[in-house]
Amino acid sequence: MNVPVFDLTDIERTVTSRQVLDTVQDGLIAHAEGRTSVPPPLHMAFPEADGDCHVKAGLITGAPNFTVKIATGFYSNSALGIPSNHGLVCVVSARTGQIRAVLDDRGLLTAWRTAAAGALITHAMSRPDATTLAVFGTGEQARLQATWLAELRTVTTVLVHGRTLHRTNALCEQLHLHGLNARPAAAQDAAAADMIITATAATTPVLDATHVRQGAHVTGIGTDMPHKNELPPALFHRAQVIATDDHAQCIDHGDFGHAVRAGATTEDSDIAAGELLKAPLDRPETAITVADLTGVGALDAALASTVLDQLLR
Amino acid sequence: MNVPVFDLTDIERTVTSRQVLDTVQDGLIAHAEGRTSVPPPLHMAFPEADGDCHVKAGLITGAPNFTVKIATGFYSNSALGIPSNHGLVCVVSARTGQIRAVLDDRGLLTAWRTAAAGALITHAMSRPDATTLAVFGTGEQARLQATWLAELRTVTTVLVHGRTLHRTNALCEQLHLHGLNARPAAAQDAAAADMIITATAATTPVLDATHVRQGAHVTGIGTDMPHKNELPPALFHRAQVIATDDHAQCIDHGDFGHAVRAGATTEDSDIAAGELLKAPLDRPETAITVADLTGVGALDAALASTVLDQLLR
Repeated sequence: MNVPVFDLTDIERTVTSRQVLDTVQDGLIAHAEGRTSVPPPLHMAFPEADGDCHVKAGLITGAPNFTVKIATGFYSNSALGIPSNHGLVCVVSARTGQIRAVLDDRGLLTAWRTAAAGALITHAMSRPDATTLAVFGTGEQARLQATWLAELRTVTTVLVHGRTLHRTNALCEQLHLHGLNARPAAAQDAAAADMIITATAATTPVLDATHVRQGAHVTGIGTDMPHKNELPPALFHRAQVIATDDHAQCIDHGDFGHAVRAGATTEDSDIAAGELLKAPLDRPETAITVADLTGVGALDAALASTVLDQLLR
Repeated sequence: MNVPVFDLTDIERTVTSRQVLDTVQDGLIAHAEGRTSVPPPLHMAFPEADGDCHVKAGLITGAPNFTVKIATGFYSNSALGIPSNHGLVCVVSARTGQIRAVLDDRGLLTAWRTAAAGALITHAMSRPDATTLAVFGTGEQARLQATWLAELRTVTTVLVHGRTLHRTNALCEQLHLHGLNARPAAAQDAAAADMIITATAATTPVLDATHVRQGAHVTGIGTDMPHKNELPPALFHRAQVIATDDHAQCIDHGDFGHAVRAGATTEDSDIAAGELLKAPLDRPETAITVADLTGVGALDAALASTVLDQLLR
């Protein structure tokens, strides 16, 4: 029997955001409890084509499947009229090693697990009565973070801060289609929201820590390489609760690491994001809370497994 | 567009052994000339299921495609009635990063490149008038090595030495179907052939160096892990020409490494197998020559690329 291949359309019409959120919640808890593993990835560089290839594997202990994810980025492709990123996910049985399926997902599952983690943690760490969300960034992640958070709690207003008005307006229109009340906002106004999610590729902080109000929560999801930085160290200094999705990763290449190296907080000041999904956070009304998410590779395995189960139903 | 998947039947009916041999010859030469690269592989272990997963990538500099190969071995699968090994090869454009195809080959391409390398090197290093071949081992590799060598030169007799008569006879029958004159042989008789290929999973040498005659050539292809060992150090001591497909690998986990550590030869006594494919070997009539092949990962890329070109024709 041939290995089955499922494409983007198959996946999108089969899996609900609720299923993604539940899977990622379980996966983050498993990760916090040490029940995941991610071997060192395989890297290749293609300097002449301005490209690279990363192969990452992940598994959740005891889960029926693991995944091997191939992702390429060839950054001159736009000149050829083709997307810069490509890739696929192989779902492999952890019991027999049989390759159960290829998910030709074009990076969708990675986007989904990133969005789900951001929405779940923002929901868990924000004040129960927080209703105003600000998103920094205007890309796919900014949209998914807002719409998925709105599945978890009431969001009355979305303030969108982007670098270009064109893209900012476009995201507001997309959010309107999802039934959300969204409008462009200046950085200072956005930073004053109840809940803030940054989803940019920024290399210098996108907001001023002094603009963040007491009682607010901030989640950063864009800092995934050492040279990137979305959240200022001063924000971590003000924070009473700091969550990281993976302590070592966040120290190595997250905003938390920048803050620790700047002396704004200590290396042991964070708690595992997954722990906060197990029980409601007992946060003082006036506390500022911060989450630094760098991406948990083992969630790929959890999510791909859920997706495959749905596809094979 | 979905990524196309080609299965074993597609591959077997599209590609000829001549195309495999030509591709592997070019690849071994490229490897000898330093025009290949193989990043450190990714490993996962599943001790509870007696399984492991290896992900290997390879490329030939300047080639249009590279490969990412996923291979699993779950050694209790036979109890479940399913094969122990599974895997697939992804062919990726080295120009744009697009995944061009999935070759659901069940390990066929790895078997082919191993067989082609053995046949090519045995042909290149043996005396022009050598016609008697001995194979140690009775598996798929033993069969392929004999039949493909017979495509490159006249083989009048194949002596088969195996541990069980049943399997030895079965291989002789298979070779008869390929038009080869094959018969079972004792180890001592097999070791006295003009050309010897060992294709076993032995952990102690399968032949006695004193039984090998002057003028003979011996190729070992089965030693691919440190605990394996097919060829005795004394054979390397007697050899006037020693070829390795990859110097560092053969030192690390090949028969050559065993011989060097035993003091039977020196670490600099080998030459690159690919060099011997560029020009006929000028070997004395009475010389003993030895080749230690541990497998060149970049050949996966070369062969998968050739296969895909044929499939897309």
